[in-house]
Amino acid sequence: MRISELSRRSGVSVTTIKYYLREGLLPPGRQTAATQAEYDDQHLRRLRLVRALTGVRGLSVSTTREVLDALEEYTGDTHRLLGLALGSLRVGGAPCDDAAEAAEVEELVKELDWDVHAAAPARATLAETLASLRALGVPIDWRTLLPYARLAEDTAVLDLDQLGGLDDPLEAAERALLLTVLLEPALLALRRMAQENESARRHTP
Amino acid sequence: MRISELSRRSGVSVTTIKYYLREGLLPPGRQTAATQAEYDDQHLRRLRLVRALTGVRGLSVSTTREVLDALEEYTGDTHRLLGLALGSLRVGGAPCDDAAEAAEVEELVKELDWDVHAAAPARATLAETLASLRALGVPIDWRTLLPYARLAEDTAVLDLDQLGGLDDPLEAAERALLLTVLLEPALLALRRMAQENESARRHTP
Repeated sequence: MRISELSRRSGVSVTTIKYYLREGLLPPGRQTAATQAEYDDQHLRRLRLVRALTGVRGLSVSTTREVLDALEEYTGDTHRLLGLALGSLRVGGAPCDDAAEAAEVEELVKELDWDVHAAAPARATLAETLASLRALGVPIDWRTLLPYARLAEDTAVLDLDQLGGLDDPLEAAERALLLTVLLEPALLALRRMAQENESARRHTP
Repeated sequence: MRISELSRRSGVSVTTIKYYLREGLLPPGRQTAATQAEYDDQHLRRLRLVRALTGVRGLSVSTTREVLDALEEYTGDTHRLLGLALGSLRVGGAPCDDAAEAAEVEELVKELDWDVHAAAPARATLAETLASLRALGVPIDWRTLLPYARLAEDTAVLDLDQLGGLDDPLEAAERALLLTVLLEPALLALRRMAQENESARRHTP
């Protein structure tokens, strides 16, 4: 398809598509004339992925490119790929340099016997949460997080189960990324609805 | 304490504190002279709450004021308060007007037998997630969310259990808000670490 049809089918303007091409977020089309190129369904899928990463998750262009580069490089090695993608996708704010909280997170991971990279940004997010809740006077330590971590184990099994049944390894890798990223707001929404329900159950006579 | 000490103890600049006072995010101190006022520990706690809401969650000043107003008005009625706070705290992007997805969310809530307000913004977040994953070619419906919702029920029980043991109803209400808001990045981080671990378990020989 031509760039105009790619634009129509993706809902992304031609100007923005050209910007993504220039920034390397979208691979070039097949050149058919000096000023014309052909695009295919893979471009369409990639374009939707770029929109999800930049729009829904608010990633910068350079972080998005890193994630997409990892996607190309490790297609077929889903575990490695997922690790890289999760590494690129930071949750929460600035890194935490509080050694005490970092040691607590280490203790949590050891207790869980989880196989998680020492540099995973999620570790810093946990340390930050412990530090900021404490600064606000909420008594909390790694043991508070333990039952939440057990529930996260069950969640991860559901997540990984969604990824079966795709033959194209690039498509499988893209889906892994999408499900991780796009389910996040939904999981938080479910928690809030469940809190409302649980609160109603406890407080209504 | 004077405003300078409030600033020192909270780490918030005097200029910002004055801005919050002007915007009604912080109640006025007790006037001791024409240009001097005294502040207490309640101001300090409130200031930390404002920083958590605007900083960690990125809420606007007007939304933060709404949440804090709800806090004042419904102190003691934890259920009502939690509902208002959760209502104020939107997860995810713009509202979804896709009636098909909204009907699916209704089906999910019915299946779960959850007591959740019809106008809860979390419902719209779920509908949006269904719509955007479908637009990206991921086959998903409300039944996909059902096992996640069951895990959210267990999470909510943990959440509500954290709130016991506080005598001051205003402090209890503030803590409910903080735990809801500040645990969110931690829960997403735990999910990512658990995914990495589960992926390692499945893919290493």
